[in-house]
Amino acid sequence: SFTTCTSKALGAYAMTSPSSGVAPRRATVVGLGLIGASVSLALRERDWGVTGVDADTVRANEALSVGAVDALGYDAEADLVVVAVPVSSIAAAVLTALEACPGAVVTDVGSVKGPVVAAMSDGRFVGGHPMAGSEQEGLSGADAALFSGATWVLTPTERTNASAHAAVRQVVASLGADVVELAPERHDELVALVSHVPHLAAATLMGIAASSAEEHATLLRLAAGGFRDMTRIAAGHPGIWPDICAENGDAIVAGLTTFVSALEEIRAVVAAGDRTALLDRLERARAARVNLPARLAAADDLVEMRIPVPDRPGVLAEVTTLASDLDVNIVDLEIAHSAEGDRGVLVIVVDSKAADLMRGALLARAYRPSVAALS
Amino acid sequence: SFTTCTSKALGAYAMTSPSSGVAPRRATVVGLGLIGASVSLALRERDWGVTGVDADTVRANEALSVGAVDALGYDAEADLVVVAVPVSSIAAAVLTALEACPGAVVTDVGSVKGPVVAAMSDGRFVGGHPMAGSEQEGLSGADAALFSGATWVLTPTERTNASAHAAVRQVVASLGADVVELAPERHDELVALVSHVPHLAAATLMGIAASSAEEHATLLRLAAGGFRDMTRIAAGHPGIWPDICAENGDAIVAGLTTFVSALEEIRAVVAAGDRTALLDRLERARAARVNLPARLAAADDLVEMRIPVPDRPGVLAEVTTLASDLDVNIVDLEIAHSAEGDRGVLVIVVDSKAADLMRGALLARAYRPSVAALS
Repeated sequence: SFTTCTSKALGAYAMTSPSSGVAPRRATVVGLGLIGASVSLALRERDWGVTGVDADTVRANEALSVGAVDALGYDAEADLVVVAVPVSSIAAAVLTALEACPGAVVTDVGSVKGPVVAAMSDGRFVGGHPMAGSEQEGLSGADAALFSGATWVLTPTERTNASAHAAVRQVVASLGADVVELAPERHDELVALVSHVPHLAAATLMGIAASSAEEHATLLRLAAGGFRDMTRIAAGHPGIWPDICAENGDAIVAGLTTFVSALEEIRAVVAAGDRTALLDRLERARAARVNLPARLAAADDLVEMRIPVPDRPGVLAEVTTLASDLDVNIVDLEIAHSAEGDRGVLVIVVDSKAADLMRGALLARAYRPSVAALS
Repeated sequence: SFTTCTSKALGAYAMTSPSSGVAPRRATVVGLGLIGASVSLALRERDWGVTGVDADTVRANEALSVGAVDALGYDAEADLVVVAVPVSSIAAAVLTALEACPGAVVTDVGSVKGPVVAAMSDGRFVGGHPMAGSEQEGLSGADAALFSGATWVLTPTERTNASAHAAVRQVVASLGADVVELAPERHDELVALVSHVPHLAAATLMGIAASSAEEHATLLRLAAGGFRDMTRIAAGHPGIWPDICAENGDAIVAGLTTFVSALEEIRAVVAAGDRTALLDRLERARAARVNLPARLAAADDLVEMRIPVPDRPGVLAEVTTLASDLDVNIVDLEIAHSAEGDRGVLVIVVDSKAADLMRGALLARAYRPSVAALS
């Protein structure tokens, strides 16, 4: 049920590999979309020899011709197989890989881990999920640097060989990723809470607001910036959600139940007019949100500057050019339109050490920024 | 229980008013914070004589000294009174104004309408709510142009005098606002759905994610851009929410009940593995979100450009300066960090007519934008 690459192709790889004291290692990547091809490129940059497999022969040949892989087919002597196929095909692809590459440790990159991990009894398999993506899709978006600084979850279990786990961990870390180990169910539960449930909640909120304003859609003009932020993800294409909901259904149903219970609690607080309990909940949520891990710096090293601006070409450029001229990195930026007409508020997040510099420059250009710590 | 301004002060106003074929009109603004002072400035720009009242005498005197009002106290001959005090004080302030200014129509600017409107039997009162705000607070942030292009809700009822309604409508429209008439309960219900319930939902979502990741806060690194967007408003200061929940409690409780029911429905869809029903709901939400009324243009005249960018100073400036140089207005902008490391996606929304121009310029600078219609 699988093909192996020819020794000729592997010979070609061995010849192009730079000489080094450490024997180059060999891998097969199954599924040559964005993530798979990025893994392959990253491994090749680190002197691995990589063969590629894809059910789509056009894509497989393209990967070969652009140099994303050294050869096509399974490498029977591979040390590592990375399975990067769609969630619903992972289990079958892992079983095939375990058979085709009897000396390899096998990992996958699926966004749901419980069902796949539960289906594998072979200790050579280690579940994984790199929290990385790109707006570019497919092979053409592949990038060897995609995983640099990304969180990459591994989900070893008691059945996993310690050596397989250690090997996958080492490879993933070598790609620049930050490894977090979680039980598969814990991973799925957390991803349900921070990704799947929020998506369904955004769509649901948008749906009821639209239904309520049905007879007069312009009533949604009453929706201010907060509503726009909350429902933004509902504008995404829904195609991937049936598979995600099928694979991670249990955790999503549990997450929705938790969310519904918490909403019923806050509804009771509002109905009872309990100001203290309301403030307490909102304060705790605020503290958690401002401490949401930033990628570049701790929240207490960042400040938020809110700058009222007219809505016309050039304003954004002026502010961001100012930051650039001062070598101030804008960590986050959004335009809050509020409900006003042709005006808005530009919100930028910068390092606290740069705050005075930036504020001074803005004041000099007649902006009126307000500055608040993020902690 | 109220003071009237001296005829000397009104005389001073009358002398400074430009001569005109139409008799200048007279107004009193009660509450000289951001909204009240902005209304006063806007009316004065349109040749009204405006007196101001504020329980805070320091603020009242400051408003007078900076020229936000012509005089202090109620104008017994006012044609119009605008009550711009905090929600919990509106009803009492309206009753005082009706008595102090017997010839005036009286309107307010509160964000909750049902209770105030229900408490007023006098046909001279018309409830109102300008959907305008500013990051600046208080008198110093006041701006005569604040209402230009803003949606301003009026909530006349069967008890409202037609002439009072017509007068308030005309004044509000003259300030540049776009008037929407709604029943008070309908206003409160919609505002609950598009503002109050989303805020409580964001805080709740943030709270359960934080609790779930309690033993290891860095697990929130699994939260991607969508979660950050959805919970952004939960980072706001909670101080205003007890009053809002007290005044609009019924509509908020009803809105939360609607939201909980809809979440239970989608939970049942996920539990049943009903792909068609799931896709149908997500598609409808998507359609509603992309049609969410934009302020400047219909959604079908806008396109979204997604531009993968490294996270370093200067990138934002380069893109926005490019837009500015080409006279392309960026209607909306956000940085989607996804979960990657030092890279992100800059999302800009521009007029579709400018899309090719902008895309060409970006490609010339080696960016790889993807373009999608917003409809």
